[in-house]
Amino acid sequence: MLGEIIAIGDELTSGRILNTTSYFAAGHLFAAGHEVVAMATIGDNAALIAESLRRALGRADFAIVTGGLGATSDDLTNEAVAEALDRPTTFHPEILRRIEAQCSDWAAQTGVSMEKIAWLPEGAHELKSDANMAGYFLVHEGKPIFFLPGVPHEMEELLLEAVITRLAVWQGVEPRTVHQKVFKVVGLPETAINGRLRPMEGRNPRVAIGYYPVSPEVHVSLTVTGDSVAEANRLFGEVDRDIAAALAPYHYGDDGDLLEEVVGRLLRAQGQTLALAESCTGGLVAHKLTAVAGSSDYFVGGVVAYSNVLKERLLAVPRETLVRYGAVSEETARAMAQGARSATGADLAVAVTGIAGPTGGSEEKPVGTVWFALATPDATHAFRLLLGGVRWQVQAKACCAALDLVRRYSLAVPLLP
Amino acid sequence: MLGEIIAIGDELTSGRILNTTSYFAAGHLFAAGHEVVAMATIGDNAALIAESLRRALGRADFAIVTGGLGATSDDLTNEAVAEALDRPTTFHPEILRRIEAQCSDWAAQTGVSMEKIAWLPEGAHELKSDANMAGYFLVHEGKPIFFLPGVPHEMEELLLEAVITRLAVWQGVEPRTVHQKVFKVVGLPETAINGRLRPMEGRNPRVAIGYYPVSPEVHVSLTVTGDSVAEANRLFGEVDRDIAAALAPYHYGDDGDLLEEVVGRLLRAQGQTLALAESCTGGLVAHKLTAVAGSSDYFVGGVVAYSNVLKERLLAVPRETLVRYGAVSEETARAMAQGARSATGADLAVAVTGIAGPTGGSEEKPVGTVWFALATPDATHAFRLLLGGVRWQVQAKACCAALDLVRRYSLAVPLLP
Repeated sequence: MLGEIIAIGDELTSGRILNTTSYFAAGHLFAAGHEVVAMATIGDNAALIAESLRRALGRADFAIVTGGLGATSDDLTNEAVAEALDRPTTFHPEILRRIEAQCSDWAAQTGVSMEKIAWLPEGAHELKSDANMAGYFLVHEGKPIFFLPGVPHEMEELLLEAVITRLAVWQGVEPRTVHQKVFKVVGLPETAINGRLRPMEGRNPRVAIGYYPVSPEVHVSLTVTGDSVAEANRLFGEVDRDIAAALAPYHYGDDGDLLEEVVGRLLRAQGQTLALAESCTGGLVAHKLTAVAGSSDYFVGGVVAYSNVLKERLLAVPRETLVRYGAVSEETARAMAQGARSATGADLAVAVTGIAGPTGGSEEKPVGTVWFALATPDATHAFRLLLGGVRWQVQAKACCAALDLVRRYSLAVPLLP
Repeated sequence: MLGEIIAIGDELTSGRILNTTSYFAAGHLFAAGHEVVAMATIGDNAALIAESLRRALGRADFAIVTGGLGATSDDLTNEAVAEALDRPTTFHPEILRRIEAQCSDWAAQTGVSMEKIAWLPEGAHELKSDANMAGYFLVHEGKPIFFLPGVPHEMEELLLEAVITRLAVWQGVEPRTVHQKVFKVVGLPETAINGRLRPMEGRNPRVAIGYYPVSPEVHVSLTVTGDSVAEANRLFGEVDRDIAAALAPYHYGDDGDLLEEVVGRLLRAQGQTLALAESCTGGLVAHKLTAVAGSSDYFVGGVVAYSNVLKERLLAVPRETLVRYGAVSEETARAMAQGARSATGADLAVAVTGIAGPTGGSEEKPVGTVWFALATPDATHAFRLLLGGVRWQVQAKACCAALDLVRRYSLAVPLLP
């Protein structure tokens, strides 16, 4: 179905808060086979809310409205909806009782009355009767409209647990004839991916391939439609196989997979432990790995050797090496990886040392020069990359390359992308 | 002036890419004294582009359109604009020459002709004649419209270097009678901030105070308007002083300041060096510190001690301590901080050890229990916090608290928020 998303809040139109809820909703609606016509972001303004809602109902089959459901005076959604749809608000005592019971501390601290939350436009039904948050839906002129809180985790919970399923029920028995998948690719630029997949494009008008650089990765989306479920399944299976073959070994995962999760799964499956010696990435690689729950099963930790003193003291890099070759050199990278491996007792150790900029570059070693080394029980491998961009981009690309180095080693494919 | 932002791209409406450019534009327009009426996000659809543009011109004084300026067939902005505003496209050979010269590799690799980029709606003027990117503006019915690329760094560069200044010129001599500022606060919940600032609210209708939780921080925005520049300045100065006094020492910086930058400035000014011993934050604190250019002047590095082995081997935490008190304990936190300080020779060392979850909690030490320690030349200080939220939130809050510990020590204010 065609949907429209309307996000409400002065904090969004003044650029104080990044709107992640519309993005979250769009992605999940798309994955569920819906198409988002437009996303509107407007301030706390009743006239604009009413206008946006009427426009959405004019061109979409359903609408999702986020924000403005709270108890304070700048929460205007319910009044605006009542006005726009000519549905006077009615009071829901059971909602007030529940919200008051669950937010009593907040109410006491702020002195704000919760009553406003329980005045909903006529015809409103709660989305989840056991939730301690606002959120309702109503059907207007045959179209469902969902009203969700603006707080991201509340909105996301209700979207996944109450909205997506209600939309599926709404659609009734309509078959699932749209398949969508995202291939996540690392180490291959968009143009090269494009070249590899060109044979699959245009082969069938029911196959759409999209390219989305999410630096340092590229995500490739595949959307297949069919007249029947069986036809959609068959066509999807075929193209899926062809794309996967064309992108291997750069294709690290699909949809919600993260590179650090894939690396973690490989290490866990092979019973290997990993240590790090980070210089220019300054802890970013460790942070990515430890953002994954359970990572202590395979990640022992490491050293953020942001000074030569630490490279010497904690990683046993010989001063001689640092003086003769410099901190950003193959020799230092190798010594760091070997030092991390022996200091920690891990099976594998990765070292990253480079120049993230903006200063510190030279003609011989410009900003973006990064050396990587991987120490394994058998050998130490090292290579250099020249990474483009400003400081955070160099750090992000170096982090990605370090994680991919472990992935490639674990899969026994060539280490250099 | 009133502005409207229109972002174009199927990658946005399908939820594959998070729209950060509209957020960036809104924040900078707001800071420059403009108000964004609405932000629209639409797919690559000429009819929707034309409709959105006409609506924007109906209710705003200027519009910013991002995306859809490229050379491929799904870039539809220029045709849609030509249609919507009845301004046939005209060819700009000088633009084609420049873009071709700068993108010759890309064009050769992809086989895509650049010509499309140089066909612009009648009356279009380039935003930057030395830029290797698309971007133009035109004035329609007395209102300026800016067309910018959808690629974030290109869009951001043109917005800051060409759009904001042109808007100021457009406004002519209109006095700057709006002052806006964001106070960044750490360690004090929104409700407590609200309580402290209530006396300043409602004192004057020309003073607006907004509260924006950006977990783990809270940002407080102050907007002051005056009939004259002098009046605006006087009123702003007064309220600014009062708010700063009410929020100290929780108020760490303003507007674009980041906590890690403020900590870095303090360390640099005092000639102190810092080391880290991170367990549950897994490198996040080091990553934040090293995201700041020049941080090697005061940050020497540290140990991500994600296993007991590393706590013992690299931080000299006695096995006895780990066994008797556990990895998450005051004793271990103190030993980690002291160990990091002696291993690295830094003036100060911060240790963080806790349970980020989702597993690993117990009745005595639930998920969210985090011990912090700060080793200084004189003493080692330690305290415990119980942090709410899921894994990444516990990590983010612990990181924030660790940085704030250094800030508070450097300012000689009580260490515990």
